[in-house]
Amino acid sequence: MTFYQKIRSVQRKNKSLLCIGLDTDISKIPESLFSHGDPIVEFNRRIIEATKDIVCAYKLNLAFYESLGEHSWSTVHRTLSFIPTEIVTVGDAKRGDIGNSAQMYAKLIVDDYNFTACTVSPYMGEDSVKPFMRNRNEGVFVLAVTSNPGAKDLQYLRVRNRPLYEHVIGLVKKWNSKNNCGLVVGATRPTELKRVRALVPEMPLLIPGIGAQGGNLKSAVRFGCDMHGEMAIINAGRSVIYASNSEDFAQAARTVAMKLRDEINMYRLEFF
Amino acid sequence: MTFYQKIRSVQRKNKSLLCIGLDTDISKIPESLFSHGDPIVEFNRRIIEATKDIVCAYKLNLAFYESLGEHSWSTVHRTLSFIPTEIVTVGDAKRGDIGNSAQMYAKLIVDDYNFTACTVSPYMGEDSVKPFMRNRNEGVFVLAVTSNPGAKDLQYLRVRNRPLYEHVIGLVKKWNSKNNCGLVVGATRPTELKRVRALVPEMPLLIPGIGAQGGNLKSAVRFGCDMHGEMAIINAGRSVIYASNSEDFAQAARTVAMKLRDEINMYRLEFF
Repeated sequence: MTFYQKIRSVQRKNKSLLCIGLDTDISKIPESLFSHGDPIVEFNRRIIEATKDIVCAYKLNLAFYESLGEHSWSTVHRTLSFIPTEIVTVGDAKRGDIGNSAQMYAKLIVDDYNFTACTVSPYMGEDSVKPFMRNRNEGVFVLAVTSNPGAKDLQYLRVRNRPLYEHVIGLVKKWNSKNNCGLVVGATRPTELKRVRALVPEMPLLIPGIGAQGGNLKSAVRFGCDMHGEMAIINAGRSVIYASNSEDFAQAARTVAMKLRDEINMYRLEFF
Repeated sequence: MTFYQKIRSVQRKNKSLLCIGLDTDISKIPESLFSHGDPIVEFNRRIIEATKDIVCAYKLNLAFYESLGEHSWSTVHRTLSFIPTEIVTVGDAKRGDIGNSAQMYAKLIVDDYNFTACTVSPYMGEDSVKPFMRNRNEGVFVLAVTSNPGAKDLQYLRVRNRPLYEHVIGLVKKWNSKNNCGLVVGATRPTELKRVRALVPEMPLLIPGIGAQGGNLKSAVRFGCDMHGEMAIINAGRSVIYASNSEDFAQAARTVAMKLRDEINMYRLEFF
């Protein structure tokens, strides 16, 4: 199954465009988990068990895992082992390096960890992102318009009367010969999201910034989906996984995730 | 000692602008090392022992280490433990992420690994790089003009009649309130290097691309140095560490490194 098919398939099966960001911070998880050998693995396991039928994807920001030092490798591996294979997994790495280094990152994230897809930064150009675009069943989300305040520093600069991010999108369209590229567009940027969707009617869009960052859910659905009301992968992290800091955290995460999924589906019914 | 002072100090002490890129690939090191518990650590140890009096810096591209999986953490730690404290160490990570994730990367690379400096990507703007610019005794090299072919895809786009990388440099000058920022400019880009040095007369420039990538050493020195013939950190990787694949590899690396250092110093005498 290709990467694009996999996204559609799980979005239909679980009736969900929701992606949960497993950006698990040891300082924010319930104390009761500290009796487990690896509290982060146990936290992630319970969140996954409680939500795996109502999401299309899980995203792990590798900054949270690499900062664990020597446990990083096994914590990522074990977390991914709990995720059903039909669900998309995104290694949020935002890498970008010259050819031979990019190959090593691709080997780690896609081959060794076995993420379905990863995020990459476009600043170093074609040979820095192509190693992540090798096979149709693996995907890559290139940073286009990010959700953070600093996005405006570079991404909005005018190049031949268009913002820089539109040039990035033009490049990604050119590079997309294996039909496995997507884009990252922040939910905090509804106007840009609409413009991006017009430029790439069929590409998957990974949309972070809902919840803690204040992005608008309604416009994420309205402007982020393709014509079938699919192919938007809407990420929520902290607002879901830290919905409660007591023993009921997994059930609380499910409640918030279910509410988000249903709200997304209500907007899908309205607009598609 | 501030980051800028540390660079000048070791460049004077070791009479060297040379940085060795310890991008050690397990498939390229002598077989005799495989009897050691960690062959990469042993390889790096011997290269460091053989060259530490003739370099100003060592640079580790983290792609090579992360791909080691669970050994990554200890291999980086042990490698750094062999490097004298007066020498600059660069964690070549090219990270860039939203605020809280960037903080975690900074914690890992600068606090936990204890690199003197790291490389970052500017695409996500101020809040993605500021967490790496916390203290005057730690440094950050922001990607400006990279040495790879794909550099032209984005970095040379014209924004208000100037290439994008000049806007990046303008931003870095603005962000440099702690006087601890530098820039990455590839040795394969002599014209751009000259222009960059004119824009930032005093910033350190990390200059990769000598050797295997074909960058010109003479112009790296002529255009990369500040007015004192310093503050250029000229990186050579594969051409030094794989100078020989036999048991004499460390001595061979020293011979090549010495030749590079001396050639650099000859150009310094000529131009400064």
